[in-house]
Amino acid sequence: MKRSVVRFEPEGKKLLTDMGLNILDAAKEGGVGIRSECGGKGKCGKCRIIIEDQRNVSEVTNTERQHLTPEEIYQGNRLACMTSIHGDLVVFIPSETRLSVRRIQVQGMEQPTKLEPNVKKINLVMKKPTVQNPIADDFNILSNLEKLSNLQELEFEYELLRILPDVLRKGDWNVTITTLGDRSVIDLEPFDTTSRIFGFAIDIGTSKLVGYLVDLNSGEVVGVGSMENPQIAYGEDILSRISHAEETPDNKQRLQNLVTEGINGIIQMACEDSGVEPREIYELTVVGNTAMFSLFLGIQTKYLHLAPYIPGVKGPTIVKAKELNINANPRASVHVLPNIAGYVGADAVGDVLATAIHKMDEMCLLVDVGTNGEVFVGNEEEIVSCSCAAGPAFEGVHIQHGLKAVTGAIERIKIEPKSFNVKYETIGGSKPVGICGSGIIDAVAEMFKCGIITDRGKFNNIESQRMVRIEGRPEFVVAWKEETNTGKNITVSMKDTEEIQLAKAAIHTGCTVLMEKKKVTEEDIDRVFIAGAFGNYINPESAKFLGLIPDISTEKISFAGNTALAGAKMALVSKDVRKTAQRLSRWIRYVELMAEPNFQKEFINSTLIPYRYLDRYPSVKKYLEKNR
Amino acid sequence: MKRSVVRFEPEGKKLLTDMGLNILDAAKEGGVGIRSECGGKGKCGKCRIIIEDQRNVSEVTNTERQHLTPEEIYQGNRLACMTSIHGDLVVFIPSETRLSVRRIQVQGMEQPTKLEPNVKKINLVMKKPTVQNPIADDFNILSNLEKLSNLQELEFEYELLRILPDVLRKGDWNVTITTLGDRSVIDLEPFDTTSRIFGFAIDIGTSKLVGYLVDLNSGEVVGVGSMENPQIAYGEDILSRISHAEETPDNKQRLQNLVTEGINGIIQMACEDSGVEPREIYELTVVGNTAMFSLFLGIQTKYLHLAPYIPGVKGPTIVKAKELNINANPRASVHVLPNIAGYVGADAVGDVLATAIHKMDEMCLLVDVGTNGEVFVGNEEEIVSCSCAAGPAFEGVHIQHGLKAVTGAIERIKIEPKSFNVKYETIGGSKPVGICGSGIIDAVAEMFKCGIITDRGKFNNIESQRMVRIEGRPEFVVAWKEETNTGKNITVSMKDTEEIQLAKAAIHTGCTVLMEKKKVTEEDIDRVFIAGAFGNYINPESAKFLGLIPDISTEKISFAGNTALAGAKMALVSKDVRKTAQRLSRWIRYVELMAEPNFQKEFINSTLIPYRYLDRYPSVKKYLEKNR
Repeated sequence: MKRSVVRFEPEGKKLLTDMGLNILDAAKEGGVGIRSECGGKGKCGKCRIIIEDQRNVSEVTNTERQHLTPEEIYQGNRLACMTSIHGDLVVFIPSETRLSVRRIQVQGMEQPTKLEPNVKKINLVMKKPTVQNPIADDFNILSNLEKLSNLQELEFEYELLRILPDVLRKGDWNVTITTLGDRSVIDLEPFDTTSRIFGFAIDIGTSKLVGYLVDLNSGEVVGVGSMENPQIAYGEDILSRISHAEETPDNKQRLQNLVTEGINGIIQMACEDSGVEPREIYELTVVGNTAMFSLFLGIQTKYLHLAPYIPGVKGPTIVKAKELNINANPRASVHVLPNIAGYVGADAVGDVLATAIHKMDEMCLLVDVGTNGEVFVGNEEEIVSCSCAAGPAFEGVHIQHGLKAVTGAIERIKIEPKSFNVKYETIGGSKPVGICGSGIIDAVAEMFKCGIITDRGKFNNIESQRMVRIEGRPEFVVAWKEETNTGKNITVSMKDTEEIQLAKAAIHTGCTVLMEKKKVTEEDIDRVFIAGAFGNYINPESAKFLGLIPDISTEKISFAGNTALAGAKMALVSKDVRKTAQRLSRWIRYVELMAEPNFQKEFINSTLIPYRYLDRYPSVKKYLEKNR
Repeated sequence: MKRSVVRFEPEGKKLLTDMGLNILDAAKEGGVGIRSECGGKGKCGKCRIIIEDQRNVSEVTNTERQHLTPEEIYQGNRLACMTSIHGDLVVFIPSETRLSVRRIQVQGMEQPTKLEPNVKKINLVMKKPTVQNPIADDFNILSNLEKLSNLQELEFEYELLRILPDVLRKGDWNVTITTLGDRSVIDLEPFDTTSRIFGFAIDIGTSKLVGYLVDLNSGEVVGVGSMENPQIAYGEDILSRISHAEETPDNKQRLQNLVTEGINGIIQMACEDSGVEPREIYELTVVGNTAMFSLFLGIQTKYLHLAPYIPGVKGPTIVKAKELNINANPRASVHVLPNIAGYVGADAVGDVLATAIHKMDEMCLLVDVGTNGEVFVGNEEEIVSCSCAAGPAFEGVHIQHGLKAVTGAIERIKIEPKSFNVKYETIGGSKPVGICGSGIIDAVAEMFKCGIITDRGKFNNIESQRMVRIEGRPEFVVAWKEETNTGKNITVSMKDTEEIQLAKAAIHTGCTVLMEKKKVTEEDIDRVFIAGAFGNYINPESAKFLGLIPDISTEKISFAGNTALAGAKMALVSKDVRKTAQRLSRWIRYVELMAEPNFQKEFINSTLIPYRYLDRYPSVKKYLEKNR
């Protein structure tokens, strides 16, 4: 028997198939993923493919003409189930027809989580009602569900009731329902669509929105989206945004709209990336600090920023995506994880979930470095937490040559003592454009290490070509203009070191105040987790030399990445994690730094590099004694 | 000590009170109901009263000026809590300030029901948060609730989260929450509003909308609204309306809007009647036949009117009032009771709930007479049911001098044998305007009894002045033009008797087919309930003589009134009744009359008065043998 070679693009996979077979069946046999909901009956129209040269396939059928426009047919579009193979052939599978969505490697720590999402798809093949058994359509679905699972007393969302009779008949009594939390039916589609169920986990950072698109059948991340938080136009820090929101209800609404639009943007990005439609997203989980959370939901923030700093809502909060104008399935649900207190929000709950410090018997220090940072000290017995307003310096903001972690950003800096020669690495290995967060931490730490600056951040009077003066003020040249992509020197100024000192002092104060609360010293800490969107790239030695974190031996330090988002993802794929999140939000003890008597003093001490009292940094002290 | 006399209008109640007391406290002491939510602190402004002559009261305070406009103050408006009594006084309490709402006597049968509504109001007096205890606002509410009741895992409706912080502070940590079904918080108000919680029960009849406004603290009906179903413009019967709805989506939407507007109209009526605001209605229950139900919810009806007559939705259906544009609290919920099958809808479930035939060991026949009537035969062991398209003749439609049951309608008719003299009674005792349903049933039954018409409804050739000919056709004069309010004779024509014969045949066929199904005869029936909006007024002898119901001895017959609505009201005040309703909707056996082999024959036999075979009507047979 003669066989044909069919090549499937864009993957390029070749199959040797029997002549006369239709393309859908051939693809199935050969393990090429082509979408089909009706099982190859020409009913769903989902197996659309493109065959430019149609000499070796069967003619266009009337069934295909029902699903395709004349223009589409002219362009070579066909339905795979209706097209038989008559010879060698090239088939292009458009992204929306492709079944496999590529897996994305996610940076950062995450605990293994049993897949148990709050939304489920169930395919039902029902009996057609008869005069003898005139069962109502909704009841037909519900009784089938009761047989299949222990789902009872489910309520249909109202909109579905309106289309229910037609969907059942369109699917010829083969339908897929989507349930939310064993309570309600939120979608009803003809045919079997169980392979298409997605969720979206979002971290609303003060500076950045990041989201994971997750396949809820596998728990795998299949798309990522991120962008600057568009609220940034109304202030880089939390306080200026909530002050703005409080001025008028319009302002509050505008800030809410901005973050919603941003979220819709990252959903779009992640979806386009992976061939998923936003309507296939059935649930979203959201983390963010209390202020971001409140602005996202449009909750009054007035009392959050006045003593005694009361958040309006602790949560968890469940809202329909539609009510928030979020572009997902119209009946999708948004689960906003619960806050802890003050500004320690659901993002902090995510940090703890992803690092699992609440399950450890070792004493842990967890630092989430961000515009609004969080610090935790504790273990399974007790965890104390606080929030630290570090500001956006670590994001490269207010740093003369500061830059986000994009291609061309200097992310590693090493300064040779005495010669002051600089070695640097850039993201992507290209010519430098600026310095990102980890680079600036390296820079300030190294400048102090080599004696270029004092512990107060003032420039010493050293002799080096790299010491230049701009408008009378000293700056240190990290990259010469000949090396850069901008044609300008990339330098670190005294204003830059000041910004970094203030930012690191905020974080450091959180660490020391909490350690004091817990009555533990640097020696008692068994593990340190540094989290944050850019945490993966910080050099731990620099972080210690700068005094961003306490002087704890390097082997105890791990980088955890964006744990807030990882926690949101864990909650997205597991109902059980949500229960843990709620428990954690009530259990983690909150410390209001402002109300701590030693806060002011600690903060001032912490602005020095690494700290006012070197005895607290024995490793730095030892190095300096040896090398200066 | 000198005392003063205060008279409260419009009740006219007089109290002897201490001078210096404020009016709110005096009213409380004397048992006069004045609304107050803040407990007399001048915060809520709800205790507004009117004192025309203000010589014997304290001066207007600044607090009052915050709640009242200068014009209101000029007109004598005051706050009762801010006004002290300085002497004898007349106080007028406006309806919105009056606490007691008058009880309305409801016509019709209803089972005593334990008050256990699905919505509850709970007053919380909370601790103000402090720096030491910076409890989030929502959590403050929830932990107080957990202490007070076993309500846990309640979710706030999203809109409430947005206003929550402000409401708590407006009420000075004294707030009232409204819960729905132990699941969610649907309202949040400052101060104590627990005395104001209402529900609304609706019967969507093919011809008529009727609703009860119910005080959910007492279970009593405090207002009634009713009007013609505005969908009537698109057909008097079910089939023409659903055919119209199926023509275009716009038509379907228009029919849905019409009934919604009608419902809003009867809510408005009932509210105005009783000083209740629509936003104080927190839950609604709805009954109606399957077609009315589907048009109300905008559910596809196409398959309901084609064999095998499949309803899209059996229910129960829970929808937000807002989604249906119903004018109640924006977060109120609409609970539509479940249908049985075919056209036997939630109204039929209401009939059974209100008569409780499912709890009886006696064999029952329940007939709900309406444009779309329902018949039930059975008891606690089994109930069979069917629907009968009687049409609107019993509502006075298509009857030459037909009229609804309004003032001036002839509701009772007696014709003297031989002399053919007529005695009639009208509603309200005024001059006759037309004949309503019970009158026309009397008329046709009496005309047959006296030999004016044959068993086929043809006029006999009798000698009487009352026999007149209009355009060559005989008519019988019930009231001479000299007696009427219209200046015209009120007559019954042959076309009228035909209409009544067809209508009664539909109901009668339902009875006989079901009795046959249950293998019971007239003798086996222990109780007969006649229900329907006008059922109270039918003369049972006439109903039997006409052959509307089978020949069962009169002492077994009860009139049950609008049991569909009574059932809806029972479900409104009791969660337990809803469970029973759901059980009944699955348990009651449905008989599709059209599919019954003897339906056609029975229907034709039933068009005769009282029936083709007189042996089935021994009491009628006996009368005729004796008197003719």
